[in-house]
Amino acid sequence: MTDPLFPPPSDKKELESSTAFTPRFDKDGLITAIVTDYDSGELLMVAHMNDEALAKTIATGSSYFWSRSRQELWHKGATSGTRQNVHEIRTDCDQDAIWLKVTVAGAGATCHTGMKACFYRTVELKDGKTRLVRDRIDPLFDSSDIYGNKT
Amino acid sequence: MTDPLFPPPSDKKELESSTAFTPRFDKDGLITAIVTDYDSGELLMVAHMNDEALAKTIATGSSYFWSRSRQELWHKGATSGTRQNVHEIRTDCDQDAIWLKVTVAGAGATCHTGMKACFYRTVELKDGKTRLVRDRIDPLFDSSDIYGNKT
Repeated sequence: MTDPLFPPPSDKKELESSTAFTPRFDKDGLITAIVTDYDSGELLMVAHMNDEALAKTIATGSSYFWSRSRQELWHKGATSGTRQNVHEIRTDCDQDAIWLKVTVAGAGATCHTGMKACFYRTVELKDGKTRLVRDRIDPLFDSSDIYGNKT
Repeated sequence: MTDPLFPPPSDKKELESSTAFTPRFDKDGLITAIVTDYDSGELLMVAHMNDEALAKTIATGSSYFWSRSRQELWHKGATSGTRQNVHEIRTDCDQDAIWLKVTVAGAGATCHTGMKACFYRTVELKDGKTRLVRDRIDPLFDSSDIYGNKT
């Protein structure tokens, strides 16, 4: 199926070395998007984009994703005010992942829980069992104030 | 279906706030894995893990993934020598992504193309058209020396 917004992926060699941007969406029409902080480099979130979300992100310089849980286009920060200003977009060798370097507006929190980043817990192994250990950092906003019962 | 290696995900609130590590594999049994350089923080690669890859990574401290193209467990660096020593593992709010902070052995290249990282091209928009612009950095190894015709 030809994507209306992006040209189709070519062969492996072309994908890796050419100057043609031919993103590879998966069978659900999605591509993985990694978001890092432009200044600190910190990993903020991982989400997914469909072709429309990717095209709108490129055209507007503000991050759009596809919400798999809500099955709708998602302008990041539209509700919470924490929009992402996109400074740079990269893709990987086989063009099946997108990397956005952003600055975050509003309260500066990327995660819907109010945390600055979504990765606020480490996985630790002790006595053969895994557990999560939470960073000793407070949320930047109270998610119930922003989303009510929607989260 | 109960996963034999990890406990099943619980409800949204538990996923976000508890200390139980209950990774959410997708319908293909995979979870997204983000790999960054432990020292510099640079984004090196994005890949996928099945439950076995994740369990082996946690148990051994060396990165394992699931190769979707080869449909097999993939000990990163087993062929090229560029194994990943895992310093820290994190997960995100809804436990459907894994973040590994690693140091890379051997030639220090993470990408099979020989580049240090897979994200060696930016997406640029000019006159309404996108194109890729490659970093002016040389590969750390010649991939044909390592993989022959396998890449």
